[in-house]
Amino acid sequence: MNSEKYIYKFEEGNAKMVPKLGGKGANLAEMTSMGFSVPPGFTITTDIARIYSEKGDLPEGLLEEVKKHVEMLEEVTGKGFGSQEDPLLVSVRSGAPVSMPGMMDTVLNVGLNDKIIERFAKLTSERFAYDSYRRLIQMFGNIVKEIKRTKFEDMIQKVKGEYKIESDAELPVEGLKKLVDEFKKIYKEETGEAFPQDPMKQLWEAIKAVFESWNNPQAIKYRELHGLSHDLGTACNVQMMVFGNYGWNSATGVGFTRNPSTGKKRLYGEYLKNAQGEDVVGGIRTPKDIHELKEDMPEIYKELEKIAGKLEEHYEKVQDFEFTIQDGKFWLLQTRTGKRTAKAHIKFAVDFAEEGLIKKDEAVMRIDPEHIRRILHKQIDPEVKENVSPLTKGINASPGSASGRVVFNPDEAEKLREDGWQIILVRPETAPEDFGGMAAANGILTSRGGTTSHAAIVARSIGKPAVVGAGEIQIDLEHEKFTVNTTTIEKGQWITIDGTDGTVYTEKLKTVKPGLFPEAQKILSWGDTYRTLGVRSNAEREKNIEKAINFGAEGIGLARTEYLFMGKRTQLVQDIVLSKTTEERKKVLEELVPQQRKDFKEMLGVTDKKVMIRLLDAPFHEFFPNYEELLEEVAVLRERKPNSQELQEKEKILNALEKIRDTNPMLGFRVCRLGIVYPEVYRAQARAALEAAAELINEGKKPNLAIMIPGVAHWKELKILREEIEAVAKKVEEEYGVEIPYEIGTMIETPRSALTADQITKVADFLSFGTNDMTQMTYGMSRDDAERNFMAPYIEKGIFDENPFQVLDADGVGELMRIGVTKAKKTDPDIEVGICGEHGGESASIRLSNEIGLDYVSCSPYRVPVARLVTAQIGIKKKWEETGYEPKDIGY
Amino acid sequence: MNSEKYIYKFEEGNAKMVPKLGGKGANLAEMTSMGFSVPPGFTITTDIARIYSEKGDLPEGLLEEVKKHVEMLEEVTGKGFGSQEDPLLVSVRSGAPVSMPGMMDTVLNVGLNDKIIERFAKLTSERFAYDSYRRLIQMFGNIVKEIKRTKFEDMIQKVKGEYKIESDAELPVEGLKKLVDEFKKIYKEETGEAFPQDPMKQLWEAIKAVFESWNNPQAIKYRELHGLSHDLGTACNVQMMVFGNYGWNSATGVGFTRNPSTGKKRLYGEYLKNAQGEDVVGGIRTPKDIHELKEDMPEIYKELEKIAGKLEEHYEKVQDFEFTIQDGKFWLLQTRTGKRTAKAHIKFAVDFAEEGLIKKDEAVMRIDPEHIRRILHKQIDPEVKENVSPLTKGINASPGSASGRVVFNPDEAEKLREDGWQIILVRPETAPEDFGGMAAANGILTSRGGTTSHAAIVARSIGKPAVVGAGEIQIDLEHEKFTVNTTTIEKGQWITIDGTDGTVYTEKLKTVKPGLFPEAQKILSWGDTYRTLGVRSNAEREKNIEKAINFGAEGIGLARTEYLFMGKRTQLVQDIVLSKTTEERKKVLEELVPQQRKDFKEMLGVTDKKVMIRLLDAPFHEFFPNYEELLEEVAVLRERKPNSQELQEKEKILNALEKIRDTNPMLGFRVCRLGIVYPEVYRAQARAALEAAAELINEGKKPNLAIMIPGVAHWKELKILREEIEAVAKKVEEEYGVEIPYEIGTMIETPRSALTADQITKVADFLSFGTNDMTQMTYGMSRDDAERNFMAPYIEKGIFDENPFQVLDADGVGELMRIGVTKAKKTDPDIEVGICGEHGGESASIRLSNEIGLDYVSCSPYRVPVARLVTAQIGIKKKWEETGYEPKDIGY
Repeated sequence: MNSEKYIYKFEEGNAKMVPKLGGKGANLAEMTSMGFSVPPGFTITTDIARIYSEKGDLPEGLLEEVKKHVEMLEEVTGKGFGSQEDPLLVSVRSGAPVSMPGMMDTVLNVGLNDKIIERFAKLTSERFAYDSYRRLIQMFGNIVKEIKRTKFEDMIQKVKGEYKIESDAELPVEGLKKLVDEFKKIYKEETGEAFPQDPMKQLWEAIKAVFESWNNPQAIKYRELHGLSHDLGTACNVQMMVFGNYGWNSATGVGFTRNPSTGKKRLYGEYLKNAQGEDVVGGIRTPKDIHELKEDMPEIYKELEKIAGKLEEHYEKVQDFEFTIQDGKFWLLQTRTGKRTAKAHIKFAVDFAEEGLIKKDEAVMRIDPEHIRRILHKQIDPEVKENVSPLTKGINASPGSASGRVVFNPDEAEKLREDGWQIILVRPETAPEDFGGMAAANGILTSRGGTTSHAAIVARSIGKPAVVGAGEIQIDLEHEKFTVNTTTIEKGQWITIDGTDGTVYTEKLKTVKPGLFPEAQKILSWGDTYRTLGVRSNAEREKNIEKAINFGAEGIGLARTEYLFMGKRTQLVQDIVLSKTTEERKKVLEELVPQQRKDFKEMLGVTDKKVMIRLLDAPFHEFFPNYEELLEEVAVLRERKPNSQELQEKEKILNALEKIRDTNPMLGFRVCRLGIVYPEVYRAQARAALEAAAELINEGKKPNLAIMIPGVAHWKELKILREEIEAVAKKVEEEYGVEIPYEIGTMIETPRSALTADQITKVADFLSFGTNDMTQMTYGMSRDDAERNFMAPYIEKGIFDENPFQVLDADGVGELMRIGVTKAKKTDPDIEVGICGEHGGESASIRLSNEIGLDYVSCSPYRVPVARLVTAQIGIKKKWEETGYEPKDIGY
Repeated sequence: MNSEKYIYKFEEGNAKMVPKLGGKGANLAEMTSMGFSVPPGFTITTDIARIYSEKGDLPEGLLEEVKKHVEMLEEVTGKGFGSQEDPLLVSVRSGAPVSMPGMMDTVLNVGLNDKIIERFAKLTSERFAYDSYRRLIQMFGNIVKEIKRTKFEDMIQKVKGEYKIESDAELPVEGLKKLVDEFKKIYKEETGEAFPQDPMKQLWEAIKAVFESWNNPQAIKYRELHGLSHDLGTACNVQMMVFGNYGWNSATGVGFTRNPSTGKKRLYGEYLKNAQGEDVVGGIRTPKDIHELKEDMPEIYKELEKIAGKLEEHYEKVQDFEFTIQDGKFWLLQTRTGKRTAKAHIKFAVDFAEEGLIKKDEAVMRIDPEHIRRILHKQIDPEVKENVSPLTKGINASPGSASGRVVFNPDEAEKLREDGWQIILVRPETAPEDFGGMAAANGILTSRGGTTSHAAIVARSIGKPAVVGAGEIQIDLEHEKFTVNTTTIEKGQWITIDGTDGTVYTEKLKTVKPGLFPEAQKILSWGDTYRTLGVRSNAEREKNIEKAINFGAEGIGLARTEYLFMGKRTQLVQDIVLSKTTEERKKVLEELVPQQRKDFKEMLGVTDKKVMIRLLDAPFHEFFPNYEELLEEVAVLRERKPNSQELQEKEKILNALEKIRDTNPMLGFRVCRLGIVYPEVYRAQARAALEAAAELINEGKKPNLAIMIPGVAHWKELKILREEIEAVAKKVEEEYGVEIPYEIGTMIETPRSALTADQITKVADFLSFGTNDMTQMTYGMSRDDAERNFMAPYIEKGIFDENPFQVLDADGVGELMRIGVTKAKKTDPDIEVGICGEHGGESASIRLSNEIGLDYVSCSPYRVPVARLVTAQIGIKKKWEETGYEPKDIGY
């Protein structure tokens, strides 16, 4: 063995030594170095794992080193490894630099043997001692000697059978003693040798097993799946065991430095005297509120409060810690960033900043966009949730909670939805043909599949909560019911799913109204001061515009006008199409103008921030009855009522539809093409909007109108339409006797408009990327068709890392945007360029938009707070980079 | 008047002085300078037009200059201006530097008056003399004094009425004398003064009128429409008049230096003795073949032959000339590049080169792609055409000839087509809803609209011959007939239209088989030696591949495979979709492989040039019955035979179709997405192609197989499919025991594939731009929908200069291609990049492809010769630019 240092006592390391000591080892070292009372121990470094991988054996001399460190442990603790008076027991745990859940091997209670057990039984209890011993044999047998788990588990079943009991906890001391004997027999049968009585032999073999486990097949597979280097290696931690069941002066507990649900600044947790950790968690005895410790063990309580303060001060995060009190001595076993609700997380960040523990910009950086998103999603009332047990749990595939009646048949779901049912669609898994049913449901629950299954992908894409891969549920499609253990849910019964954490409940649970509570508003407004990228919102109806502005939108980046043609007005759109002359068409539109003027007035009256109104984008046929349905109706009517007026009227509509419907609606007779071919339509819209603005001005308001032309492919389209709108504006200004401030710009959504943005900029006051359509055209994929037919296999096969309709594609669409922005700013460096596609509210896409050099993002009202956070974080990150400031930990 | 020279005698100018002398003046000067015997005269320069525009008057001193030049004319001709013995008459004509058809003002016979007319009548004939005099008064009155044409025309009608005759030619001398008197009266009434008897006054006022005409409203409008500068100005030509009707030693004629129909090198033309030009053209007397002149006037014939040779030598083009013989003296009146058939034009170029008049590269440059296109279009047999008179003439809107039975109702046309009718659709004009009928017709004839009307645009886009704006035809839609003068054509009658020259005939005319005649082949192979851009062809069926190779294609750039799934095999495709498991699907495909192997063997066996086979591109639903029709059928069956097996079967197909049909087929479940979702489909196709190649190799042939993946948007799609095909190839190679040379590449048709061509190139052996789809996606316009609904207004409004589906869009799609090529060559400078969209055969698009740096173009077999010519011309032009060579005239 060379002179390199392969073993570190906990007090020799710190948090930064993760590569050498592994995550767990570094954490223990950090706690120890900070002066917390941590059970002593040492870590064998990851170098050993690499050596073991190469040579297939541990290096010479390591055993001597281990022995030396055990001796040092004995010295520190005053106990003896193998002592029959005050025996030192240790745990042996693996711990890699990167967390590999389920891969960690652990052997507890190393140091017990047939003789020590008797003394140990006296120090604790017979029950606990023999249970500890049988665990040692079981873990050692399984992990070190690779004896199958079932060998031991079958024996436990057998002995329980003899006592006619069901739970392990009911086993009497005699039963446990019998198990120890039987386990030793199994051990001998399987290995050909007796269970080792030499504590040092137990320890050495356990250490060896830990390093060997680095190369077991599951571990290798896990690393390959997650792209982790095999060279990372694992460390091995050896630590004195402490026991909270050493009598009534002992205890064990868990705590949070603050309340993880409400965020309140007060110690939170529970404890049990004379108990082990699993008693607290297992629910056999009811733990006490941690504040009762103040009476039970006043000194310890004081120490605990101090420790909590020190932990927060040191880690700058709310901590979730475990502790044990052994014979009046406090031991800190573990501390980590406390898991908490999104609400608590936000409150912690605000409180920490206001308490001066961290700076405001650090507080903003602490919030994950997911936290904001979560508080804006429908959620089960936390108080209700605390008091009901979930029926089962699956994978949280699409966030939010949803209640509905169980339906199994997707086609039926569509029909029942029309009858007014609230539905949760339950399927073993989903397929493209189930799309309609999924869209009709409030939420989706499947028994198979993971986060990239068809159900998961589609649910996220259409914004429905989903729990997938809930393996416990047995679905009986034939009889339309499903079973979890003994509970059966029939078609039509109410259930609630929580796609945020994957839980499923057997009733309709109360949900809380989502929204921004005061701390969330506070942290967002802190963040606003760092933003350079603007945030606007896509909203059209008065109510939504108000909501968006309340959520902090700095304007409306996209106000669609399709809804102004809906309802009773669809008849007018049909009349536009049915008109035989421009004159007829104008008459129809004259009816529409005063109606829409009123609507536009409501829109523009909400705010004096900019409202970007997009002229009609949807193809005319969307205002007609569904073509296929009409075709069927007419076919039936021809059979049943061949000479009826009803037939004649439907045929008239059908004929009109046949003329205007598109082979490819996405690429068809829509967007500004409508305005070019039927100029009177856009003129009427522009007139209505401009008249609305004029009226508001005359009422003393300050409407801020921008007119946005959709789907431009060639600058001449925009030039023609611009001139027409300007002519209308001139007339309106004359009629109303006011000057109307307005802008005319365009969506950049066809690839061609991005490629020729230099030309388009010459006739545009602003540009706004419509990345929904642009993604479709750039990929040559219709979103509808993709998500129904091939998005799921594309993600499963790893062709797409993300659904490009949700997360902006940096290489393709992003490149096109880069080209567009560069060309546009070349023509006019000051032209305002934004994004109003759905991507405008998605974190990664916002970051990309910033890199590309956009001026603002625009998204749906509920995503405005998320966008504010993300843009704030971009600003803070940039500031930190510029000033060279390095916060200790900018993770969340 | 300053010292600048404002008047040039013809002998003082030349062809290069167009800006100063105008086109006509420069042409007359050139002929004169070359020593041809041209009636003498002089040109007043365009400077005067500019001065006139500014000052509103002619410059001082100009009158004196004109008088001087008239004196010189008198000297040269020996005649006297105003002489009653040997009167000099002149013509006064405008002539701008750029041809402005219909804008040219002309006054003939200037110099006649009441006295001179008597002598003139003796020198010619009374009829001719008085007719000439009344023309002078008419033209002078109309052009110089702006008296309305109708005033004179009504009088002619009146006088003819008195004599009870219909044609002008029947007017007796007395009638003409009466007209002279009446015209003089009109002149006096309208102007308040008598018709000027002073020849110099006539001349001066005519000159002034010519310069004034430059700024008349029509002329200004014409220049604005055609983007011509108002500063160009017009010149004014004053020239001695010569007369072919000076007795039987006089004659007039027209000729071509070679035969303009066949290209044969022999003088071609006709003449009439003692006649004026209009007698030859007007058809009152039958002209004689020019070779008869040899007997009639042997000296003159000899001179003519010499002149023809000199003309060709000088102009290096076949010349179309006009001449007059006055009293035994030959006068050349005009010469210009002879209009000729495409066939003759090509033959001329080859002959000129072989006769040493021009170089071979110059000969190649002389051919317009249109000439090649024309000889490859269906044409009316020239011999037949010479012997029938057209019923009427319209605008040649889409080339080629077509015969068919007249149908007026577009919907009916579709039905009659299904009944086997050959159809010419006749409409006043067409609208989007007529699309189906237009597609069903062999050709289209309209009475309204121009080259950018809906009918014209759609006809060209779907490759149907069309004649539009045939204003003479009166369409009676109600009674389904049309009338031209006295001829009536009823529905169902055969007609023939020639879209190449706009003529319409009343019968089914014989057409000639188009193809490359020997001279065409020769000139193309001359051109081939200059090409750097390759030419391949899009063809799949054996016969077409052969044709393409015969037309000179250097490989097959796109062999579609859809047809391999057509006919009886559509059932198999339906079974693929209906299969419930991969296994079932594989079984179906196993049936397909041997069938397709045979097809591929035929394809690959034609040539050892590269054959690029594109895997299935079309969506599955295209192999099913039409969805809408099926929907109707099922609806009807449900009414009529609710429990029939027929209904059940149709419902099954309908259900399958509902699952796979796309909302946007162009952006739907098609191209490589089929291969990703159903890997076994592409594997089967690859296997069939590779097995075909293996069999051919074993038979001693050299198949050159390239497999092309369509519609890639992301490089990982190509990577996955490439690996699968390579695995198949490995197996096939093992099974057949041969090494199969093959390449795997991809179409670049989605914008994203161009934007990420650097990534795609890493896994591609070649790239081929599919600009049809790319244009649709870049513009966000489906071609179907665009051409049906909005292409026509887009072109009419000038948004598109050309239909971007026909002519590659340089700014948008071209830019995307530039980006793609640059990125691809950055990854691999040697990767082969081509284009196989329809644009690959269009001249401007080929030039653009060359600029962008493509390696080859690929087009339909019939466009291969055109592409060879265009690519050759690119090569020659480049060579000329490099060597600084300047041919006299590289126009066509």
